[in-house]
Amino acid sequence: MEGESNACRTKSGRERYRTSDRTALPRRGRSRRMSSVALRAAAPADTAAMLALLQTVAAEGDALPFLEGLDGDFIASQWLRAAGCVVACRGAVLLGMYRYGTIMPGRGSHICTATFAVSPDARGQGIGRALVTHCLDAAKAAGYQAMQFNQVVSTNHAALALYRSLGFIEAGCIPAAFRHDQLGYVDAYVMYRRL
Amino acid sequence: MEGESNACRTKSGRERYRTSDRTALPRRGRSRRMSSVALRAAAPADTAAMLALLQTVAAEGDALPFLEGLDGDFIASQWLRAAGCVVACRGAVLLGMYRYGTIMPGRGSHICTATFAVSPDARGQGIGRALVTHCLDAAKAAGYQAMQFNQVVSTNHAALALYRSLGFIEAGCIPAAFRHDQLGYVDAYVMYRRL
Repeated sequence: MEGESNACRTKSGRERYRTSDRTALPRRGRSRRMSSVALRAAAPADTAAMLALLQTVAAEGDALPFLEGLDGDFIASQWLRAAGCVVACRGAVLLGMYRYGTIMPGRGSHICTATFAVSPDARGQGIGRALVTHCLDAAKAAGYQAMQFNQVVSTNHAALALYRSLGFIEAGCIPAAFRHDQLGYVDAYVMYRRL
Repeated sequence: MEGESNACRTKSGRERYRTSDRTALPRRGRSRRMSSVALRAAAPADTAAMLALLQTVAAEGDALPFLEGLDGDFIASQWLRAAGCVVACRGAVLLGMYRYGTIMPGRGSHICTATFAVSPDARGQGIGRALVTHCLDAAKAAGYQAMQFNQVVSTNHAALALYRSLGFIEAGCIPAAFRHDQLGYVDAYVMYRRL
């Protein structure tokens, strides 16, 4: 049970982790304990749950680009072997996850990129904010100077608001970059934040 | 001799292919013959010359990010197996090359990206323009709807001017995205053009 075997202790209370509760956000050096959600490094035993989550979020067709090729090998190569890969769990249930890694080789390798996914059932609880904050801290600790997202779908208002609130700027806008499942082609932002 | 075995005939005259000579640019349906430069699909026999060119341009430290990992396997996997890979040769001499391919999976796969390299000895002759124009035509013919570059170094004025003259716009600007060999960290543009 991946949620039970982690090194992070879970909070005993039933308090929800709220988006507005900035003080509960994990910061470097601050305890990772928060409400009943634990963030910890992803492990191979998480593969099936991570794959199911990624497939679920991709199938919504409004945030992640993937249409095919999502399988255990993809999780292993693109997530578990990323520079960093973290899952958010409540008990044994995977609620969300992120990965980060270098966005460009060599002379561009001081900037990282990241991907986030939160289970539809767990949205609105601040889990996305906890994941992004955790990821920013981890990437900075790993030596990256900035974080950049190449494709934030312009109609994904929750993600945009979250990233903006955490200091990301729209460094660019790619016209009709994303074929949204319901809306057709929509713009996507390139977002950037120094670490 | 890779330049001699290609299917494109070379022009017999000694006329240079000039940047200002827009009428000589290859367009879809127009002959690919132009001055003494031939553009043709890259082949495995080009690997050594392509690798040498890529290493030379990368070593200049002002346009391509690569600092390591440039070897025959890189040429094979990242160039020869790209959606399209073309070399520009004068006789047997490789003067420039490009590759293009899908920039994002699935819902972003209607946009392609591309990489270009021109030999330092062959610059100012319009070879870059010929390569980009050829690439735009090839990518459109392959079904892509737009071309996007994620990292055009802001101090690479020749490339910027070329891309702008061919209809690319700066869709974004990433601060300090490229560690320039002489100038330190410089911005990079995200450039975009519909096909």
